[in-house]
Amino acid sequence: MSSLLVDDIGELVTNVAGSGAGGPLGLRRDVALLVEDGRVAWIGPTRDAPAADRRIDAGRAAVLPGFVDSHAHLVFAGDRATEFAARMAGRPYTGGGIRTTVAATRAATDDDLRATAHRLRGEALRQGTTTIEVKSGYGLTVADEVRSLRIAGEVTRETTFLGAHVVPAEYADRPDDYVGLVCGPMLHAAAPYARWVDVFCERGAFDADHARAILTCGQAAGLGVRVHANQLGPGPGVRLGVELGAASVDHCTHLDDADVDALAGTARPDGTGTTTVATLLPGAEFSTRSPYPDARRLLDAGVTVALATDCNPGSSYTSSVPFCVALAVREMGMTPAEAVWAATAGGARALRRDDVGVLRPGARADLVILDAPSHLHLAYRPGVPLIRRVLHDGVLL
Amino acid sequence: MSSLLVDDIGELVTNVAGSGAGGPLGLRRDVALLVEDGRVAWIGPTRDAPAADRRIDAGRAAVLPGFVDSHAHLVFAGDRATEFAARMAGRPYTGGGIRTTVAATRAATDDDLRATAHRLRGEALRQGTTTIEVKSGYGLTVADEVRSLRIAGEVTRETTFLGAHVVPAEYADRPDDYVGLVCGPMLHAAAPYARWVDVFCERGAFDADHARAILTCGQAAGLGVRVHANQLGPGPGVRLGVELGAASVDHCTHLDDADVDALAGTARPDGTGTTTVATLLPGAEFSTRSPYPDARRLLDAGVTVALATDCNPGSSYTSSVPFCVALAVREMGMTPAEAVWAATAGGARALRRDDVGVLRPGARADLVILDAPSHLHLAYRPGVPLIRRVLHDGVLL
Ligand SMILES: [Zn+2]
Ligand SMILES: [Zn+2]
Repeated sequence: MSSLLVDDIGELVTNVAGSGAGGPLGLRRDVALLVEDGRVAWIGPTRDAPAADRRIDAGRAAVLPGFVDSHAHLVFAGDRATEFAARMAGRPYTGGGIRTTVAATRAATDDDLRATAHRLRGEALRQGTTTIEVKSGYGLTVADEVRSLRIAGEVTRETTFLGAHVVPAEYADRPDDYVGLVCGPMLHAAAPYARWVDVFCERGAFDADHARAILTCGQAAGLGVRVHANQLGPGPGVRLGVELGAASVDHCTHLDDADVDALAGTARPDGTGTTTVATLLPGAEFSTRSPYPDARRLLDAGVTVALATDCNPGSSYTSSVPFCVALAVREMGMTPAEAVWAATAGGARALRRDDVGVLRPGARADLVILDAPSHLHLAYRPGVPLIRRVLHDGVLL
Repeated sequence: MSSLLVDDIGELVTNVAGSGAGGPLGLRRDVALLVEDGRVAWIGPTRDAPAADRRIDAGRAAVLPGFVDSHAHLVFAGDRATEFAARMAGRPYTGGGIRTTVAATRAATDDDLRATAHRLRGEALRQGTTTIEVKSGYGLTVADEVRSLRIAGEVTRETTFLGAHVVPAEYADRPDDYVGLVCGPMLHAAAPYARWVDVFCERGAFDADHARAILTCGQAAGLGVRVHANQLGPGPGVRLGVELGAASVDHCTHLDDADVDALAGTARPDGTGTTTVATLLPGAEFSTRSPYPDARRLLDAGVTVALATDCNPGSSYTSSVPFCVALAVREMGMTPAEAVWAATAGGARALRRDDVGVLRPGARADLVILDAPSHLHLAYRPGVPLIRRVLHDGVLL
């Protein structure tokens, strides 16, 4: 077992609070970090750094936990660049284009789907995303959902069954039958390949009754709950997620006071935020030219907020968490520190993981070395590729 | 003299209009491009590609002219990340922080300034910027402006004398004396190292009379004119630029009808836009949380529009032209094609260059190969580093 020392770190984001001056990011200055066996083994002052088999010099740069992108759709075929261009010329986003991708995905070979998923996973990793959630949802047949999840499982262990993404065209007149399929044979076949179940609970997709039925079946099959909720307008998704103990409700663009209260009501007894996380996806608002969710309101109500990309070919084809951090600061009232926390520890909370999104002894050695002296630069230098090096499971990429 | 063939280009942006179906970008499909002696020697169908000493396979990706970033400030010391964070927490941008950078720049060694300028130039080049304009303006003494321009000249030949960036603190009570210095000894010493003269014409910086005096002196010394105009509020900068035949008026955030009319009045006789270009810098609006300029209004009036980064540590610390393209589409009413044109051919027009920003035989072999099949992806995939390869002066980076 070899060891690796990341030396001469100017600013380390640990996300371990309570260390005094470090604030919510648990910032530490002038430290080194030792990796052994894929885990963080030691953090301490540079001058006390132990010997190691290998050493990387961070050159006084900032080091962060790798990003935890808790919401992405990487298994699909085709792109919708022309739909995007038309939308930018004035056509609104309705979600109707999802069926375009479903048709392309069904027609694609396994190898095509695999190539796209691996390409996007690699692209995300080079941008610092060391943990990523990947959903199915462009297959919408038993066979196509299962193969989507198998391919998702090649790039992550955070796989989500999203058979209820939209009602496919062939079930347009009988959505109840489709919900029956999702809760029955599709879930049965998909569950062994999934850790989570998700529903697009929105006007035009699945209503509260259908969503509750599917999520409840998923829970009974051993899957954790997450919900696409309140993206395009007000709706029951957020409260349903809270009712079912969802790890996360995602989008949260159109919330009323009852939604915020419901989320705040899931407060953890130790005062460290909420058990249901609000995952905000500003890439979707950017690429659909929609109003942004109000992160400030959620944070001020004590709700735990995560940031993720929603990477998908229709409404948010970005794989860049730093881009989402910059948007969150510009558009959603988050401070740079809140946005960085949300993109690391927040994403981990949205996946109910305590081994990632944090840097302390025992945590997974997933980290990024920035081309910058401070985490502030992720928002201060928007669009600039600032990820100099990535360490994933203790392996330097 | 060796030759290089860029083969199997799926979509080539030539910016040569009049080729029929190619639109304003002069798109061509399934072509190859031959480079000889740092210039484009031939473009034609892939099947007719000539032999060459070396070949790169574009793999059916999109190829564009390298970006022409016609507005950047790369010679400075220090950063203003904490000022940025304070601004995001509610403090407005007034331009007052420029003096912070002036103090740091004066205190820096030549090597420090040189290291930063070269680092940022390299960062921009890796993001596809093959031509960049670089201004002085953080020295504001004769010696510091001259050394800034000498260092700028190490990274570009598009150097701009911006002694009139702000009135430095030591002249705060006697701005007329500072204008005298700029027009006299400073211009005399700086002109040999500059191609352009620029003034920050804005309330709190230089008024119309001062700006006219400085720009006129610069012209008499053989420099071309460009103006920082109408960024923070309405003002005389745009009309002054037009009056003096400026190559570009930059920012153009607050325009009235007379400003737009003045720009439109510089129409070229052949109907190909205006001789004075409106250079829009959406990175500044992003990072100061200000309203964006209305590109649509300018385009609809027939004004030639360029996009540039304004890369500087105070108000826009991005070096990413793709990020500016994405913002222009999201926020400023530009189509992806208009934004890509503005970031390539538009920037060239703002620098009065016809050898860059275009791909045709005889043009400089400055181009980028995208990790994408179409120029649309620069806006469709915001924040994602899509620049796979860069060819600069015929040399593959
Ligand atoms: Zn989604
Ligand atoms: Zn500027």
